[in-house]
Amino acid sequence: MSAEEKQEYMDQIMVRAQTLIEALPYIRDFNNKKVLVKYGGSAMLDRKLEESVIKDVALLKLVGMKPIIVHGGGKEINRWIDKVGKKSEFVEGFRVTDRDTMEIAEMVLNRVNKNLVQMVENLGVKAVGISGKDGGMLHVDKKMPDGKDIGFVGDIREVNPQLLDTLLENDFIPIIAPIGLGDDGETYNINADDAACAIAAAISAEKLAFLTDVEGVYRDPDDKNSLISVLDMDEAEELISQGTVQGGMLPKVNNCMEAVRAGVGRVHILDGRKEHCLLLEFFTKKGIGTAIISKENGWYENELED
Amino acid sequence: MSAEEKQEYMDQIMVRAQTLIEALPYIRDFNNKKVLVKYGGSAMLDRKLEESVIKDVALLKLVGMKPIIVHGGGKEINRWIDKVGKKSEFVEGFRVTDRDTMEIAEMVLNRVNKNLVQMVENLGVKAVGISGKDGGMLHVDKKMPDGKDIGFVGDIREVNPQLLDTLLENDFIPIIAPIGLGDDGETYNINADDAACAIAAAISAEKLAFLTDVEGVYRDPDDKNSLISVLDMDEAEELISQGTVQGGMLPKVNNCMEAVRAGVGRVHILDGRKEHCLLLEFFTKKGIGTAIISKENGWYENELED
Amino acid sequence: MSAEEKQEYMDQIMVRAQTLIEALPYIRDFNNKKVLVKYGGSAMLDRKLEESVIKDVALLKLVGMKPIIVHGGGKEINRWIDKVGKKSEFVEGFRVTDRDTMEIAEMVLNRVNKNLVQMVENLGVKAVGISGKDGGMLHVDKKMPDGKDIGFVGDIREVNPQLLDTLLENDFIPIIAPIGLGDDGETYNINADDAACAIAAAISAEKLAFLTDVEGVYRDPDDKNSLISVLDMDEAEELISQGTVQGGMLPKVNNCMEAVRAGVGRVHILDGRKEHCLLLEFFTKKGIGTAIISKENGWYENELED
Amino acid sequence: MSAEEKQEYMDQIMVRAQTLIEALPYIRDFNNKKVLVKYGGSAMLDRKLEESVIKDVALLKLVGMKPIIVHGGGKEINRWIDKVGKKSEFVEGFRVTDRDTMEIAEMVLNRVNKNLVQMVENLGVKAVGISGKDGGMLHVDKKMPDGKDIGFVGDIREVNPQLLDTLLENDFIPIIAPIGLGDDGETYNINADDAACAIAAAISAEKLAFLTDVEGVYRDPDDKNSLISVLDMDEAEELISQGTVQGGMLPKVNNCMEAVRAGVGRVHILDGRKEHCLLLEFFTKKGIGTAIISKENGWYENELED
Amino acid sequence: MSAEEKQEYMDQIMVRAQTLIEALPYIRDFNNKKVLVKYGGSAMLDRKLEESVIKDVALLKLVGMKPIIVHGGGKEINRWIDKVGKKSEFVEGFRVTDRDTMEIAEMVLNRVNKNLVQMVENLGVKAVGISGKDGGMLHVDKKMPDGKDIGFVGDIREVNPQLLDTLLENDFIPIIAPIGLGDDGETYNINADDAACAIAAAISAEKLAFLTDVEGVYRDPDDKNSLISVLDMDEAEELISQGTVQGGMLPKVNNCMEAVRAGVGRVHILDGRKEHCLLLEFFTKKGIGTAIISKENGWYENELED
Amino acid sequence: MSAEEKQEYMDQIMVRAQTLIEALPYIRDFNNKKVLVKYGGSAMLDRKLEESVIKDVALLKLVGMKPIIVHGGGKEINRWIDKVGKKSEFVEGFRVTDRDTMEIAEMVLNRVNKNLVQMVENLGVKAVGISGKDGGMLHVDKKMPDGKDIGFVGDIREVNPQLLDTLLENDFIPIIAPIGLGDDGETYNINADDAACAIAAAISAEKLAFLTDVEGVYRDPDDKNSLISVLDMDEAEELISQGTVQGGMLPKVNNCMEAVRAGVGRVHILDGRKEHCLLLEFFTKKGIGTAIISKENGWYENELED
Repeated sequence: MSAEEKQEYMDQIMVRAQTLIEALPYIRDFNNKKVLVKYGGSAMLDRKLEESVIKDVALLKLVGMKPIIVHGGGKEINRWIDKVGKKSEFVEGFRVTDRDTMEIAEMVLNRVNKNLVQMVENLGVKAVGISGKDGGMLHVDKKMPDGKDIGFVGDIREVNPQLLDTLLENDFIPIIAPIGLGDDGETYNINADDAACAIAAAISAEKLAFLTDVEGVYRDPDDKNSLISVLDMDEAEELISQGTVQGGMLPKVNNCMEAVRAGVGRVHILDGRKEHCLLLEFFTKKGIGTAIISKENGWYENELED
Repeated sequence: MSAEEKQEYMDQIMVRAQTLIEALPYIRDFNNKKVLVKYGGSAMLDRKLEESVIKDVALLKLVGMKPIIVHGGGKEINRWIDKVGKKSEFVEGFRVTDRDTMEIAEMVLNRVNKNLVQMVENLGVKAVGISGKDGGMLHVDKKMPDGKDIGFVGDIREVNPQLLDTLLENDFIPIIAPIGLGDDGETYNINADDAACAIAAAISAEKLAFLTDVEGVYRDPDDKNSLISVLDMDEAEELISQGTVQGGMLPKVNNCMEAVRAGVGRVHILDGRKEHCLLLEFFTKKGIGTAIISKENGWYENELED
Repeated sequence: MSAEEKQEYMDQIMVRAQTLIEALPYIRDFNNKKVLVKYGGSAMLDRKLEESVIKDVALLKLVGMKPIIVHGGGKEINRWIDKVGKKSEFVEGFRVTDRDTMEIAEMVLNRVNKNLVQMVENLGVKAVGISGKDGGMLHVDKKMPDGKDIGFVGDIREVNPQLLDTLLENDFIPIIAPIGLGDDGETYNINADDAACAIAAAISAEKLAFLTDVEGVYRDPDDKNSLISVLDMDEAEELISQGTVQGGMLPKVNNCMEAVRAGVGRVHILDGRKEHCLLLEFFTKKGIGTAIISKENGWYENELED
Repeated sequence: MSAEEKQEYMDQIMVRAQTLIEALPYIRDFNNKKVLVKYGGSAMLDRKLEESVIKDVALLKLVGMKPIIVHGGGKEINRWIDKVGKKSEFVEGFRVTDRDTMEIAEMVLNRVNKNLVQMVENLGVKAVGISGKDGGMLHVDKKMPDGKDIGFVGDIREVNPQLLDTLLENDFIPIIAPIGLGDDGETYNINADDAACAIAAAISAEKLAFLTDVEGVYRDPDDKNSLISVLDMDEAEELISQGTVQGGMLPKVNNCMEAVRAGVGRVHILDGRKEHCLLLEFFTKKGIGTAIISKENGWYENELED
Repeated sequence: MSAEEKQEYMDQIMVRAQTLIEALPYIRDFNNKKVLVKYGGSAMLDRKLEESVIKDVALLKLVGMKPIIVHGGGKEINRWIDKVGKKSEFVEGFRVTDRDTMEIAEMVLNRVNKNLVQMVENLGVKAVGISGKDGGMLHVDKKMPDGKDIGFVGDIREVNPQLLDTLLENDFIPIIAPIGLGDDGETYNINADDAACAIAAAISAEKLAFLTDVEGVYRDPDDKNSLISVLDMDEAEELISQGTVQGGMLPKVNNCMEAVRAGVGRVHILDGRKEHCLLLEFFTKKGIGTAIISKENGWYENELED
Repeated sequence: MSAEEKQEYMDQIMVRAQTLIEALPYIRDFNNKKVLVKYGGSAMLDRKLEESVIKDVALLKLVGMKPIIVHGGGKEINRWIDKVGKKSEFVEGFRVTDRDTMEIAEMVLNRVNKNLVQMVENLGVKAVGISGKDGGMLHVDKKMPDGKDIGFVGDIREVNPQLLDTLLENDFIPIIAPIGLGDDGETYNINADDAACAIAAAISAEKLAFLTDVEGVYRDPDDKNSLISVLDMDEAEELISQGTVQGGMLPKVNNCMEAVRAGVGRVHILDGRKEHCLLLEFFTKKGIGTAIISKENGWYENELED
């Protein structure tokens, strides 16, 4: 190496050291905190994005947090239903999940599940793939929209966190497929967002991050520069009543608000299409998405202004 | 109830109490012992038999043992390969497991796995379904019979029992699909008998029971009354060299002997087609199959004669 | 063995397996629960009955419960008092326990105590014989019926469960002689039923079983077919106010009700003259005696009807 | 109080403080060490002496040691045998212990046992009275001197220290009656000195103290001023071969030497007729009896000279 | 030794044994209790007194208590300030602690701290010297008397007892210099009496002993025979309102009362100029100083009269 | 923010995320490993450098390592000795450390010690400052070069790691001043490099890093481009015997080699004058200094070539 090359190398790695040092307060504050990542939909379609999510989660684990992944099936489930030539029936706008559909859904979810495990393990970090059937973790009631039977779809009645606690205490990353058991001993499908909320509440997670295909919540939906970094519950309700939060955004924000009410410290809406979105949100002051918080849960005074 | 009916009821339940009392020495001696059950093949085809195996395993857990199930895929894997119209190639007598075949095998095994979990959970006992990928439990080398590539088939190089220990200590029944990770980060299929042997040895299991479709080992294969209850390693070798143990029985017995050599206390060949074969073998003096033992592993003096 | 003999053997042991499987839900539900057995009186006189009680208790331990025995002295104490030619004095209907009588009582109780320990140990199960003096477990006030001094007879003022907890956690069966310490540093005799109630309440036992010489509580004392399997506290009070429960049964039922009020899950009146009465009561749906329960303590909805 | 009285009071309590301070190095060095006290014979006959022994043991516990008492039956056993008019038979110089004798012996030993427990408890210190039957602690072979049957007398074959460890870890003082179980399930009497040695060796006691009715070992038996404070194993053997140690002293010294060989740190022969002999031996440099030590067990260089 | 010399020796060591036995109830009652000793001022000036305090503390540790020392700097700090020729400024009667003064104070306090550690270690007992900066134990607000800046002097806002708990659980004696950290990241001096009170309250100490240069509280300040052994909170307030407690005694008593209110079991004012004052107060019934107690904190009925 | 500004912000924080991800394998491999940093000399003189070292150490802690600091006194000790006008005497080239000098050295070292604690605590990370006197950690023999007395200078005879283990297990960073206790109860000064080696060996540290004022070891001392990244023990000996390593470098390299021989995994010579030298060495493949390793201690095959 010439003297210049050497200097260049030193400059490069010095930037690296500085970056690590800047992460220090975040690493310190999140030490041992449970962080649940809901991962599905668009963010799942792209292998490179998938790797970036998995690396982020592995890093969160290595710097002392306790991450958990709840995943959906992406578009794979529908693709398989089509593949086997199955026709879906709809009731009250819900697709009916008959026994065959449930079987396909479970196989696809298990496959996604073990793929994620494999990606984490290949980074040298320990992960365990489970569904809500394992350890009797998720018990469901049959979902009956307007009293109509839509098959093996369940609403979570009870979360038994014993297996989850065991895995977290022994330094495994739990990766969870949203499947549960009914009182009839049958397998039920669960909406992955609902599963993430219920589990985050049951284990008093510090953070719940939804990897979505939007950037976050805008103060003015037409102005891409009006993204809200930190949104207080009161303001969120105001935005809803004003009609600013509407359309596809409405159920997402409602879901987040419910999780905050159930005791989750802070719920993040992130753009899962951005590489390393978890690190960018958690390890920078401003973040890249929208964090929904409650004043009761102890956020910092000056955060709303920043 | 008439006086006679009452007497009859009392007689019946008295038999029950006597039976429980007779089980006392077995329950006492196996307390806290690890018992690995290899379950697959014929015993898996019949729902009633499946339930009987699962109930036996649940009971072993409840009376204080630490059971573990390693399962195969039964004939389901082949059925699915045929279903999707896949043609299998053979090399050196081994079916080549290409990426598509491996994907099907993994989906089927995961499905069997979660079904078994569900059956145990429905009895009110805690189970967790994992594969050798979870917690990095099974690391494999690519199998190369006579140097030929037969695809994603692995030989176990290392068992990392950390996840297994965690689950056993926290009172879950681990149910294991025989799938492992290669150094190339790929998923590999493992022979279920081999997986059972390797895991039993790695956790120093007290017992390893193979649920097969034979009754056990005969002293004279033509005489169904010559079943051997307890077979010492020396005698086993003699039966092999004499040619008494041969054909399909030979690899089974060799497998058992290898497990005994690797430190497993006692290896049982049971007829998985018999209901409650596990209880019948473990909780009666004579048993119903063949137990292969080593004098070094501390069997009781007078057992060979009984 | 001929083919028929073999079949017969198989049939026999299959019944055995079925019985064990039927016990599964009971074993599951009582896992790790504390069960206190009050043992004395008639059930103690017969060596065969004594062995049946001890085997039952050992089995309860082996299938995962935490049994404790509180015993009386049977008729041995009186026999010894007569033997040494001691004349008893009576005050207010209570036999006066002077220092000599107390000494004899303690010797007899200790002898019974160590005999029970020996019987359990001979089954290969660990037991420890203690009295309320050990570890300062039972502290008493001098009993003064109508202000009269009847000697070294005590009412329990305080149960210190530390020694009991230590033994239970370390998998010993505690066997307890009902003797306590007074504030004067003297040894006091305690009624064994009272000791059982006080200890069961202090350790929040799930079950307290009195082995008596009656079958249980009858709805109609003249009709042997009117035995009540499960008796709610409200109904019990009704039976008392109606005069149905009366005579020698009255204090027994009152004792049971007091234990239920003190937080014991369920109190059983069993006929200790029946072999394996503990297993018959605990491991069958209908049971053989009377269980006194409180709706507040969480019994199952449909039990009263069965 | 006058000024003089006050001064006198201060002087008195200052002496007290000085004494406590002088005990500091002994308390420090024996912290958490197991100390087994064999107590029986003459030291047991006198209530005042008994109280002094119990207070010493309680204090050893309170200042951080882990004391254990093994006791004999004093002369009580013989007194009771005479009382019930039983004639003893002798074989090879050993009294034959038939079933009746064993029963009396056990009752007397249990009574002594619970009395000692009571005395410790009355000082506010926790004690638990057990025999070798409890927790299966002492397993014996039938003693057959010259092949002759002398009844229920046993030699310890195995000490199972599990119960003892449990009690010590939970801060109870174990008080042990020297009774054991035979393979025939019967109760056997054990020589208390032998029991003390076997138990001290099994738990690797730091100290074993025999409370006897001699002052210790003399260099010249005729010179009361020649008491040996610290006796090395080599010198002990010399004294025996010289015939200096002889008569009743010989088996005592042999017993001590055996305990040292079995790994006990230091074995003390003390005069149990002296009040507070345990404190006087353990908490003063010179002590009052004879300590038998082995150079291998790490005594201090300069002790032999002092 | 002649017979008389021997007798004399025996008499002497018997007194010693008696003294130890008399300490038994105190040792028993204070077992595992946290005892905080505030040590400073006059008691620190004399090497012999210092050794007596350290020996007392070491003994308290050895007999099972959990002592903690909080020390001041004695007159050393002023001596060093003079030595370096520094002139002190005063504001509102408080000496201004500028950065230089704080540096000197910290150096002197650390020196005193490590000297005390060394003295304890030289007795073979484990001690660890820390200040309130270590483990972030003491966080302070800047003290502003009447709004005036007096430099680096702090009032304790928060005690983080984690380091203290860690040391106590692992059997070290913590020795604490009264220095804390401000929110500005600077080092602040803390009044040692205040530090002792705050720490004693934070760890729920059983006892807090101030080693002062007075004998205690007098009922009549002019009558040296009117020293109060045990002073109830109510009576203390009365003595203050009567003007009996006044002058330099007033802030001392107020400090003690505050500690009692904050949950410390009992606060002792002792004359640190008396050798072994801690043992004399703790291990005798009457004690030598004044113990301030609250009826709510559970003192014994008859103590006020004695 | 304009679109460009936004893009720029995103680019910047993306670099940050990438950097964190690149650190993943290092963080993973060093998890829970003990890393001892010897810090002193030039690296101590500059406040900015000091902060960079402290931030590095805090980060190592936060990402899961167990760092320990052993520090020297920099040039402060000499400065203070001069300040108080003390003349130093020299014997055999060693400065004589008389009692006054030792006192000054201890005060300076304690001051440095508490300053470092304060800097770590101000980052929100827990640190505890101790010397080898605390918990009796460092016991020394008096150093006698050629039999000459040079005062209170010690060579470590024994490291008692109990306090260190306690602090590490409870997540404190221990910061250690190199001072020990002699058998005479006196305080002794210890060479900081020697203390670091002895402590690293006693706790089986994975890494020992010396922050020096050289860049590392050169293959050719005249060629600044010949810095050796990883130096095997064999090659190190060769460089010494060739005379390549000489002068001031010789004792440094010898010290490192001794530590490797004593079981430390890998010893680093780093240039403490470079900011973030610890992160640069530990979290980059090539590092910035020289790591001395032994093939026996399990370095990676291909490291020597890189």
